[in-house]
Amino acid sequence: METYLVNEFHRQSAARRAPAYQHLRRTLQHAIENGELTPGQALPGEREMAKLLDLSRVTVRNAIAGLVGDGLLVQRQGAGTFVAERIVKSFSKLTSFTDDLRARGLDPRSTFLERGVGEVTPDEAMALNLSPGAQVVRYYRLRIAGDMALALERTVVPQSVLPDPNLVENSLYETFSKLGLRPARALQRLRAIAFDAEQARLMNLPEGSPGLFIERRTFLEDGRVVEYTRSFYRGDAYDFVAELQTE
Amino acid sequence: METYLVNEFHRQSAARRAPAYQHLRRTLQHAIENGELTPGQALPGEREMAKLLDLSRVTVRNAIAGLVGDGLLVQRQGAGTFVAERIVKSFSKLTSFTDDLRARGLDPRSTFLERGVGEVTPDEAMALNLSPGAQVVRYYRLRIAGDMALALERTVVPQSVLPDPNLVENSLYETFSKLGLRPARALQRLRAIAFDAEQARLMNLPEGSPGLFIERRTFLEDGRVVEYTRSFYRGDAYDFVAELQTE
Repeated sequence: METYLVNEFHRQSAARRAPAYQHLRRTLQHAIENGELTPGQALPGEREMAKLLDLSRVTVRNAIAGLVGDGLLVQRQGAGTFVAERIVKSFSKLTSFTDDLRARGLDPRSTFLERGVGEVTPDEAMALNLSPGAQVVRYYRLRIAGDMALALERTVVPQSVLPDPNLVENSLYETFSKLGLRPARALQRLRAIAFDAEQARLMNLPEGSPGLFIERRTFLEDGRVVEYTRSFYRGDAYDFVAELQTE
Repeated sequence: METYLVNEFHRQSAARRAPAYQHLRRTLQHAIENGELTPGQALPGEREMAKLLDLSRVTVRNAIAGLVGDGLLVQRQGAGTFVAERIVKSFSKLTSFTDDLRARGLDPRSTFLERGVGEVTPDEAMALNLSPGAQVVRYYRLRIAGDMALALERTVVPQSVLPDPNLVENSLYETFSKLGLRPARALQRLRAIAFDAEQARLMNLPEGSPGLFIERRTFLEDGRVVEYTRSFYRGDAYDFVAELQTE
């Protein structure tokens, strides 16, 4: 891979090139897009790459920072820089976190940060179509695959649907299935966020890292809302795809 | 609004409350969600809010930083902090940037950073189903509404579809319509990014601000690809929504 990088970097004459950090950034981006660098692969260290390409370390650092910002590279503290392993998720089909990852041969897990029963808040009542005073089951979970935290997820379910919070082990949708509940559709809203200090700590990311905030209300065939979930996905792990139609 | 904030902030006894910055963050978030603070409205200055609520300026700054990260507040350099005016865009219906904003009573404009004709690159050829050597029209536009830059957008169109780059004034879709071309569907891919220094400068945002990178390939009824667009939307301006169905 070192030879490939050196050759590609020097393929254009320096006179015709963009500034060195932009040129390195594009060289690396192409290597990822062409599959020359593969998901999960480690990059040479900053010092080594600077030496290989006869660049300053600042130039190498800037090029890498740009690609981390784009979500194409990830930096793991103490371990170095890697090509991001992205998960492609549909924004038009209702699938569960657990199924998405199993389909990629990964072993998804959840760490429960909170789990309990309580009285519905005004916001939750609105989202779940519940009356004030109704009881709800709440989860706050760290969703993990391999050794990487992928999302922080707060889920609220009416207790009339899910009587006991301990019925959920890993996957809420597996529990729904056991209870004979079949989610039929969901309304979803997505936006870009920067992880705050507390979220970044839980996710083992630098504060301010890019992420996606996704809010989801899931309905049964009969119109009952069975789930109100607010998720924070790490930006370097997920692509969302959809097919759009004219109205 | 000051009175509302003071009352709401003190409504819970301090003994039962989360840390002050979290409590202020939630108070402000609720005020936005309840419509007590409306899109575009200016917040009191940091110093004033600290005085009003008897908090340190660091506490106020942390609460505001969190809400800026969530995309609920925006900071404009020199002008202060404002409630974000979010644009809700469908992730399942194909609509144009210009139409989205006109529907909200806004006046969308474009500044052309680049405009020209050239030979297709290998990446563009793949995206547009073109043969090597084909000519394409390229735009790099800053998309603006009012006095706010909303997106940076690179568009590539086959010259066989759009003979002259000067045919597009503001809206590519308006030009398509004049040429009798009716886009029928699009494939779209979205991910979270952080704006790099150059993009941030063009958008008048702090470097590292959260954004959405969206890649779109648009098709005519007959299957021809008429557009390959890569957009960077500011994270504090856009929500994407969709209805999801089970498979």
